[in-house]
Amino acid sequence: MDVTPYEVEGKVDYNRLIKEFGIRELDNELKERIKRLAGGELHFLIRRNIFFAHRDLDWLLDKYEKGEKFYLYTGIAPSGSMTIGHLIPFVLTQWLQKKFDAEVLIEIPDEEKYFARGIDFEVTHKLAIEDASYIVALGFDPKKTKIFITSEYIHHLYKHAIRVAKHITFSTIKDAFGFDNSTNIGLIFYTSLQAVPAFIKSAEEGKNIPCLIPLGVDQDVHFRIARDVIEKLGYYKPAILHSKFMPGLSGSQKMSSSKPEDTIYLKDSDEIVYKKISNAFTGQQPTAELQRKYGGDPEKCSVCQYYKFFFEEDDMKLNEIFEAERKGTILAKEHKEDLAKKVIEFLHKINKERERLLPRLDEFMLSD
Amino acid sequence: MDVTPYEVEGKVDYNRLIKEFGIRELDNELKERIKRLAGGELHFLIRRNIFFAHRDLDWLLDKYEKGEKFYLYTGIAPSGSMTIGHLIPFVLTQWLQKKFDAEVLIEIPDEEKYFARGIDFEVTHKLAIEDASYIVALGFDPKKTKIFITSEYIHHLYKHAIRVAKHITFSTIKDAFGFDNSTNIGLIFYTSLQAVPAFIKSAEEGKNIPCLIPLGVDQDVHFRIARDVIEKLGYYKPAILHSKFMPGLSGSQKMSSSKPEDTIYLKDSDEIVYKKISNAFTGQQPTAELQRKYGGDPEKCSVCQYYKFFFEEDDMKLNEIFEAERKGTILAKEHKEDLAKKVIEFLHKINKERERLLPRLDEFMLSD
Repeated sequence: MDVTPYEVEGKVDYNRLIKEFGIRELDNELKERIKRLAGGELHFLIRRNIFFAHRDLDWLLDKYEKGEKFYLYTGIAPSGSMTIGHLIPFVLTQWLQKKFDAEVLIEIPDEEKYFARGIDFEVTHKLAIEDASYIVALGFDPKKTKIFITSEYIHHLYKHAIRVAKHITFSTIKDAFGFDNSTNIGLIFYTSLQAVPAFIKSAEEGKNIPCLIPLGVDQDVHFRIARDVIEKLGYYKPAILHSKFMPGLSGSQKMSSSKPEDTIYLKDSDEIVYKKISNAFTGQQPTAELQRKYGGDPEKCSVCQYYKFFFEEDDMKLNEIFEAERKGTILAKEHKEDLAKKVIEFLHKINKERERLLPRLDEFMLSD
Repeated sequence: MDVTPYEVEGKVDYNRLIKEFGIRELDNELKERIKRLAGGELHFLIRRNIFFAHRDLDWLLDKYEKGEKFYLYTGIAPSGSMTIGHLIPFVLTQWLQKKFDAEVLIEIPDEEKYFARGIDFEVTHKLAIEDASYIVALGFDPKKTKIFITSEYIHHLYKHAIRVAKHITFSTIKDAFGFDNSTNIGLIFYTSLQAVPAFIKSAEEGKNIPCLIPLGVDQDVHFRIARDVIEKLGYYKPAILHSKFMPGLSGSQKMSSSKPEDTIYLKDSDEIVYKKISNAFTGQQPTAELQRKYGGDPEKCSVCQYYKFFFEEDDMKLNEIFEAERKGTILAKEHKEDLAKKVIEFLHKINKERERLLPRLDEFMLSD
């Protein structure tokens, strides 16, 4: 098992990750505390352990209870069209914003995948703007949400990034990210820039402001290194909330955004969604008769997992879907058609919202 | 012998550097050609082989003769008060500007010595502005000279720097600069930024424009790497003119700007200049009598070298000074007093010019 921002290899064991990364389980006590402070509700991504671990969330909530408001920071590195899976940290961030009245900073590093995968910078830069337009469509508060594309906001970031970079050696980076001597020097430096929004508000406002970062667990490495540096610079270490990976339609544990058949892009047409989902892996028995007799395994069924991760917020209804799969009362065809309808409905909604907000995108973007 | 921007160790053998760096001697043919194209004059820094080597200068002059004008690029990384030695590349650059009607770009990387030596960034940033004010006082054409401080101009540099960084591996950097795993990631990345002004005009104007970089030979490493990358990006490789190191007052081959007694700062008072020069190494005989009998060695005498590198433009007069030293007709005290007068005169002049131009400094600075 190897989990870094640039490679996820082997079967991911989330319990082992908790130990190896030195992060903490998001346990029931902490969940109850979030629920209470959020006014009695808990987001399904937390209820279902999709956000499963954290760093210093208890500390952050202590601060919050004492009247120190926190801000949220998350991001996405554009590499291709945005997928459902990419939305997970943003969905939780938007919910946290609403419940905790928090400001949100979103970094879109348009250079990261150019360094990491050699995707042309013109392409990643264009995708960055597209990604921003989809993020906005999730319902962020325009007064409290600021999005910036790294190359366009670098004049605000660089002077802070150099202070981070000064405290990180190649040795540290190499071990943490699995780099070697053939890694390009852009990617080696990049983590300094990803660290900045975690303390930029403290630096600019001249007082410490707690920061919470919802992210995919593969991104933890950046902050495992940066948290200590940020503390050395005199700022609060950011708290972190870690999510599991969105499964792939092929039954893979982590969807691959570069395999079109394994994921749903936000731009996919109805026809393509139908086709992808009709080819999705369910793990059902080879015949309808056998499925009715033996049932399937919702944990392995990508259709069930899609409901769990994104398309069924209601736990009762999710339970019914899982039960039907388990007992064999639903067959793959119907199961997939139901999901496809939900997915298409969501895509229509987010694309419509995106269109509606496009003329207002600039309100969200930081550049000057 | 080890010559990199971050360390100069051992006795520097310039002929050996030519071989090791793969650069070329600035020979008489090329000097004559510069002289002819410059309208019949040749700067003493070239006449005296203080600029002693080059890369592709012949190519640059071919282009020039065919009507393709070049621009000049040089710079300084602030680490302490500016010294006489720091001025050498700027003095030649200003002369080349005048003779070849060339635009000049000057980069002042305020972060480099923070990375390389841990000098506080607030300090280096402040020094950057001071350095700019002294550079301007050398007589650059305000209409054709643009100075920028890296952290303030990063929004123009970064998008180009990432394209350089993508093509450089840690392995390359490590070998070239003598880095190891304990080097900080800021310094590892930094060379990408130093490369940018060598092609930024071509990139921004959408057509290839030749660039000539006068620099201290220790800086060659940056461009040894960057030239190949710049060519891969589709731009002309910059041509380079390499200077020898200004000797130290202690008789060292390279003045150390961090040893106050070894160098003259542009801010030094008359009194300090007198004191430093009166303590300078001349290598003269232990007594006046012996000196009159055996004479000294102008190549080893730091006073003679100061005349050669900076304070006596007239070759005839320089020859007289060298002869007097060689023949023992001038004794250390008088020799030093003569130089001190010249140095003080120069410092008064440059500081006065600096004061005069301070209100106009913004005309030279690029920031937006």
